[in-house]
Amino acid sequence: MAFDDLEFSAPLAGADGALASSFNDVVGGSATYAALAASAFAPVRVVAVVGRDFPEPTLAAMRARRIDTAGIERADGLTFRWKGRYHADLCGRDTLDTQLNVFASFRPKLAGGYAQSPLVLLGNIHPELQLEVLEQVEKPELVVADTMNFWISGEPAALGRLLQRIDLLIINDEEARLLSGIHNVPRAARDILARGPKMLIIKRGEHGSLYFDAEGVFAAPALPLEHVVDPTGAGDSFAGGLLGYLAVRGRYDHAAMRLAMVHGTATASFCVEALGTTGIASLAHQAVGERVARIRRLLHIGEE
Amino acid sequence: MAFDDLEFSAPLAGADGALASSFNDVVGGSATYAALAASAFAPVRVVAVVGRDFPEPTLAAMRARRIDTAGIERADGLTFRWKGRYHADLCGRDTLDTQLNVFASFRPKLAGGYAQSPLVLLGNIHPELQLEVLEQVEKPELVVADTMNFWISGEPAALGRLLQRIDLLIINDEEARLLSGIHNVPRAARDILARGPKMLIIKRGEHGSLYFDAEGVFAAPALPLEHVVDPTGAGDSFAGGLLGYLAVRGRYDHAAMRLAMVHGTATASFCVEALGTTGIASLAHQAVGERVARIRRLLHIGEE
Repeated sequence: MAFDDLEFSAPLAGADGALASSFNDVVGGSATYAALAASAFAPVRVVAVVGRDFPEPTLAAMRARRIDTAGIERADGLTFRWKGRYHADLCGRDTLDTQLNVFASFRPKLAGGYAQSPLVLLGNIHPELQLEVLEQVEKPELVVADTMNFWISGEPAALGRLLQRIDLLIINDEEARLLSGIHNVPRAARDILARGPKMLIIKRGEHGSLYFDAEGVFAAPALPLEHVVDPTGAGDSFAGGLLGYLAVRGRYDHAAMRLAMVHGTATASFCVEALGTTGIASLAHQAVGERVARIRRLLHIGEE
Repeated sequence: MAFDDLEFSAPLAGADGALASSFNDVVGGSATYAALAASAFAPVRVVAVVGRDFPEPTLAAMRARRIDTAGIERADGLTFRWKGRYHADLCGRDTLDTQLNVFASFRPKLAGGYAQSPLVLLGNIHPELQLEVLEQVEKPELVVADTMNFWISGEPAALGRLLQRIDLLIINDEEARLLSGIHNVPRAARDILARGPKMLIIKRGEHGSLYFDAEGVFAAPALPLEHVVDPTGAGDSFAGGLLGYLAVRGRYDHAAMRLAMVHGTATASFCVEALGTTGIASLAHQAVGERVARIRRLLHIGEE
């Protein structure tokens, strides 16, 4: 979990409604976004680390949404912090500062019922740590992982071992190109599927995402939204919504994955409409269902 | 119609199968691509200008595909020529040279049965000329126009008059932003629809296109293709396929437009798989139908 310091080129409304173009100490992090998003669908267990500066009420609010926070370790130090500036078009962003803090020495441990979790989302950390977490899960039904350019370039061997242990990899198009060394997206996808995962999702920001497996391809365009405020956490909210849907569904075949993509897309659309986690912090299952219906209309071709 | 001189960062196979990274005198131009694409569906009439250097066999090949070339004026001078270099990712390109040649003094005249054409595609020329062409059509059922940044910035008044006379505008996302002054695509679309056209298509290159009208939005992602060779003419092939489908359908309502978008997308997918017009020069209706079926599978969400 993290604190984010966010800068925008135009003022936007914060959680208190006041207009500003920079916001400090915004509660964020992959685990936070993914857990909040998934909790609209199903119970969630979080494994993460926070520092002594992390607000207890934020954890309490997560528990109020059937999120188990027993796996959130409070270490003696400061919470991981990321500072970034979004470009005017909200598509690109520059990282201004990263402070690992308590994250630097984090070794995730699973306790309680955590080891019996049927679905596992391995967030974006060192692939060796992702493997360590995975080895602590007794009999996962579905293992999903995220990664990033830093590990793709710097830890190819460990990442290669991870890819052979997971079912689904979720990355963006630039990461897919870097991992495969192939620019063309469908060919890059074929290359990555040959490295281990049976399923691959390639995210393309405001253009939506593509799902690949041996049975074919599914395209989930993003919902055209008139008010995009803060893209932070969109990809993690997508993953959370996708896994939340699959947890309820209890099946992970090709047909289920198409529906899961649409639920992930709908979930992420709420995230980007507000600052930080505001858009998904109290998201209801029914609201996601209404956006899923909008996506159905968006993609409905009709009969000739 | 035009000659294109094309440069690529990697060698590709030309019409003769030989590998090269630059190709000169490639027959192109919006009218050529759109006419060839539409002729897979319905009879086409072309209004254009070529110079004395334009090959007669190319015109004969168009006539062999139920394209009426009586409206193609052969002027005393050289054919319009565009020279461009594609970036390595084939998404961006730089214009290296533009020679207007006979295009500089082109004043389109409709003769023969041209004035009775039910569907009119006004290619990307000066909006005053687009209006002149339109005034020569007696009773069009559907008027579609393309434009570009050069006219949006340089001829806003004439373009504004054109927008009030057309049914459908087809532009790309950057043009939509420039025309509306709004970065957000769905808000830009709303602004443009308020300027006259009942329907708007916003093209997004490899990400596909979006259709907007008063009834809603339809997203047509591009088919993920493993072999993209030359993107030249993709947008014109899309427009040609879209209008060709509508000509057969004979209806232009929201439901028909969704299907037309898919047929345009399928048609454009053939264009980008080969150099110049090679991919669409002998395109059959049935082949388009097979790709439409692929797009249906690509977008099929399924039932919960």
